[in-house]
Amino acid sequence: MSQRSRHQSTWNQGLDNMAAPSGNTRGVMERSIRDRAPPLLTDLYQFTMAYAYWRAGRHQEPAVFELFFRDNPFGGGFSLFAGLHDCLLFLRSFHFTDEDVEFLRSVLPPATDPDFFKFLRGLDCSGVTLRSVPEGTVVFARVPLMEVAGPLAVVQLLETSLLCLVNYASLVCSNAARFRLAAGPSRRLLEMGLRRAQGPDGGLTASRYTHIGGFDLTSNVQAGFLFGIPVAGTMAHSYVTSFTSLEEVWPQTLVALNGDPDPVDFISLTKGWLSRVCELLRAEPGKIREGELAGFLSYAITYPQNFLPVIDSYSVGCSGLLNFCAVALALCELGYRPVGVRLDSGDLCRQSVDVRRVFRLCREHFSTSAFDSLIIVGTNNISEQSMDELNKMENEIDVVGVGTHLVTCTKQPSLGCVYKLVEVRGRPRMKISEDPKKSTVPGRKSVYRLVDAEGHPFLDLVCLAVESPPVAGVSLSCYPLGSDDSPASVTPAQVACLRQEVFIKGQVTHPLCSAAETRAKVQSSLQTVHPRHKRLHEPDSYTVALSKKLHHLVTETQKGSSNSSNFLLAN
Amino acid sequence: MSQRSRHQSTWNQGLDNMAAPSGNTRGVMERSIRDRAPPLLTDLYQFTMAYAYWRAGRHQEPAVFELFFRDNPFGGGFSLFAGLHDCLLFLRSFHFTDEDVEFLRSVLPPATDPDFFKFLRGLDCSGVTLRSVPEGTVVFARVPLMEVAGPLAVVQLLETSLLCLVNYASLVCSNAARFRLAAGPSRRLLEMGLRRAQGPDGGLTASRYTHIGGFDLTSNVQAGFLFGIPVAGTMAHSYVTSFTSLEEVWPQTLVALNGDPDPVDFISLTKGWLSRVCELLRAEPGKIREGELAGFLSYAITYPQNFLPVIDSYSVGCSGLLNFCAVALALCELGYRPVGVRLDSGDLCRQSVDVRRVFRLCREHFSTSAFDSLIIVGTNNISEQSMDELNKMENEIDVVGVGTHLVTCTKQPSLGCVYKLVEVRGRPRMKISEDPKKSTVPGRKSVYRLVDAEGHPFLDLVCLAVESPPVAGVSLSCYPLGSDDSPASVTPAQVACLRQEVFIKGQVTHPLCSAAETRAKVQSSLQTVHPRHKRLHEPDSYTVALSKKLHHLVTETQKGSSNSSNFLLAN
Repeated sequence: MSQRSRHQSTWNQGLDNMAAPSGNTRGVMERSIRDRAPPLLTDLYQFTMAYAYWRAGRHQEPAVFELFFRDNPFGGGFSLFAGLHDCLLFLRSFHFTDEDVEFLRSVLPPATDPDFFKFLRGLDCSGVTLRSVPEGTVVFARVPLMEVAGPLAVVQLLETSLLCLVNYASLVCSNAARFRLAAGPSRRLLEMGLRRAQGPDGGLTASRYTHIGGFDLTSNVQAGFLFGIPVAGTMAHSYVTSFTSLEEVWPQTLVALNGDPDPVDFISLTKGWLSRVCELLRAEPGKIREGELAGFLSYAITYPQNFLPVIDSYSVGCSGLLNFCAVALALCELGYRPVGVRLDSGDLCRQSVDVRRVFRLCREHFSTSAFDSLIIVGTNNISEQSMDELNKMENEIDVVGVGTHLVTCTKQPSLGCVYKLVEVRGRPRMKISEDPKKSTVPGRKSVYRLVDAEGHPFLDLVCLAVESPPVAGVSLSCYPLGSDDSPASVTPAQVACLRQEVFIKGQVTHPLCSAAETRAKVQSSLQTVHPRHKRLHEPDSYTVALSKKLHHLVTETQKGSSNSSNFLLAN
Repeated sequence: MSQRSRHQSTWNQGLDNMAAPSGNTRGVMERSIRDRAPPLLTDLYQFTMAYAYWRAGRHQEPAVFELFFRDNPFGGGFSLFAGLHDCLLFLRSFHFTDEDVEFLRSVLPPATDPDFFKFLRGLDCSGVTLRSVPEGTVVFARVPLMEVAGPLAVVQLLETSLLCLVNYASLVCSNAARFRLAAGPSRRLLEMGLRRAQGPDGGLTASRYTHIGGFDLTSNVQAGFLFGIPVAGTMAHSYVTSFTSLEEVWPQTLVALNGDPDPVDFISLTKGWLSRVCELLRAEPGKIREGELAGFLSYAITYPQNFLPVIDSYSVGCSGLLNFCAVALALCELGYRPVGVRLDSGDLCRQSVDVRRVFRLCREHFSTSAFDSLIIVGTNNISEQSMDELNKMENEIDVVGVGTHLVTCTKQPSLGCVYKLVEVRGRPRMKISEDPKKSTVPGRKSVYRLVDAEGHPFLDLVCLAVESPPVAGVSLSCYPLGSDDSPASVTPAQVACLRQEVFIKGQVTHPLCSAAETRAKVQSSLQTVHPRHKRLHEPDSYTVALSKKLHHLVTETQKGSSNSSNFLLAN
């Protein structure tokens, strides 16, 4: 029974009793990451480069890569960082099987030294250290989110997998957070995009990270199973259209909740209510669809405590709503509480207002208090924009279901994280592009989040790792990125170190967070961000700045590089 | 060695020797579909409906669903149908484990009859029959692509999984086919979108179906392993920037191919060539990046037969191209054939023309015939539009790599296939929506493709299954969809039945096609389609029509439904 109540799906379920994945789920997830992201699921050039490093004896050189994105997604002012959990499981289980190595042998040139394949066979992440922003943190463009340090060949091999695991997770989590901001805090949000995602795993990843980003429920049963996300759903139109007549309803009786053991003829009872509803609403009984009523009756008899039909298979006003009210009133008479209705087409706002008015009429006329708490679910190709509009218009929608636009991130279907080399053998590395935005910032770094007196973060400061951290209350000079290269002076009220070591020499050193924990982190992180950065349209851009020393290193590296070497002439 | 040559990756590899997945790969794929698409990876409402059908004793009623999409993707005139292979594996292995059933028990209401879970535990697809368009066929909006017939509860449970497996596969395959049309037949296309896909499986699915849609190569090693797709890739910018000086190059020698056993000092040899190249091109040696040359040298020594560096880490004209030519000329001197270069930023067309001019200059000046066959790879955020433009402008790009816009289908990131009930217990079912486009076409059907005298398909005819097929040379009357409901008369020169039975009563009855076979099918199917339907912009729309009898059924069902029943008044 406790097992049941832990997982049981309901549209009204609070999140406080959301289930965490069960113990053995963790093992499933670790196995699953090896199936989902085997070490061959990467770009070929990682292997060609790894062999070139190995051949040159450079494969063990200590190297540092950074993962970041260059623009906040969806034209917004922020992103959320997600995917770390999967990255940690991936790093922990990273190794090549004999079969993997045999395939690589068939792909690399025949002259490849056989000892390289022995090297690959013995490879793992025991030399790798990962410093990362905690999963679920609000982050900004150009801040290095992850720092991956370790032997050059190994950290190079990790690139594509880490990008693949972070990019979509962060993107869809950010998208969900924007839908949540558009919807307001109280409306309940249901993710239902599995059928529109990039295949099965795209759908599962979407369910997980949209929940983390602020969605309450998912239609995806496997996501409930693996991640403990509350699942919801009742019926499709096909269920309704599969019925044509009341003769198909079976059983036809229902036992009242009041203890009376005699089954009641539920069809007759409902027909009586339907007459009264038609009378009250001056509806034409001739327009009511018998098949729809049969479907509702059959469903209500099966689920007397979970009655929430889709009411627009034919016509909401002429049939679906009347049939719902009749069945719901019959349920109420027997002591059950109907749950509500779903609208899946047309103008959801207007219809929801009409439906609520009818619920209130019934409640007054028939004195059924259960009609006070009926919920209205709206699902009809909702985009961020339509969610925003919906929130501004008069409506009575309690739960919104979102599919396509949520999981495919129509507005921007990829995040564009990159993974750049910043240090080899303790020496900073920089890619100097003719497009300044594509140049990288060299050196191993620390990142601090500076917070103002009101508790709002106002600047992320990127320093050299060797620098001492900024001090609360003490003014400092820095160089905001994207400005005209002039310094700014700021005084933080508080300073937080943005990243932490989460994986040291092959070991996960930070507790793996459950989806529920990361979900809470998202909301608390978003809470602190000033509304001007969270605005969905034309937000104020958040400042990311380099410390004086790091700025100096960038300038010197560029200068040194433009003087270039005279190696050609000198030799 | 045959194993090697089967898989060996090369930018120039012909497709005729493309590997089919090895025998044991098939088993891997079948296991993999159970991991990727377990039967719980579906929407909860499939289970709530299944229980309601079971409770009402309707679960065994014979039912028929159809899968189709309502609009051709990307504003185009056609789509490709893909995902069938995965659907067949999914159907074949469909069953619930004890663990699945226990989880469902915890999710469904406590009052759910325990016998229902026994029923689920014993469920499989032995009662299911699937008729489908062959994978890789050109298809059009509103044509029923798959017909899934079987016990009502079972075929209902399959909905989300089938949609999930077909939607993205067909979408990304169609996207790839459009890129192929934009690129022209001879340019080679490389898919490299793994890091931007919806997680690992999104990336793998993308690699597979873009190859089927017309791409030649993938960067994704796992896709090579599982599906035999030729893989390609050499180096990232990080490889180049990881070098700073020639001192890092090791080994520094290379043995000539001519049989001379004495290793040649490859650095000195290349330096000599670099001076001559600079002289020829009147380039400033002081601007040449030593680190870049070191990277190229080290790579060339490792891969003397596979030298294809990325040449824009610093400046193509001032450094990368000069370094490439020097190393390539040194390789030629030792009897090796350099492969080419990759450009990853800026104006690819203009740069490719410049690069080719330099190749020709070197070829003439230094008499190196190998420079005639150097290839230029372009990779820089290519979209369908930029591919189209590229194809129209002067350029020398031989291979184009496409990532983000290909795998995320930026122009339209979901296809929108739906799965609609059309028959129960032999009686047609129809969803009559206030939006006529959302109404369904009732009844079990056959679909014929009518072909004109030139061999071009010109009309897909949707008939009732019981009708006799159209006859070549005989005129017939039909009702084109989306027209003003007036009949049209057509005479086909040939008639083809569009769908075939591929899964009967639990058995796959049609050979599972390899990726290579389906890829060939795509091209042959596209070949037959008239260019006016294949135009990327504003194509002529292809006609899909209902037979007279089916049109009559639609009209009668609508009429019957608007008269509705008098069940309420009668009782």
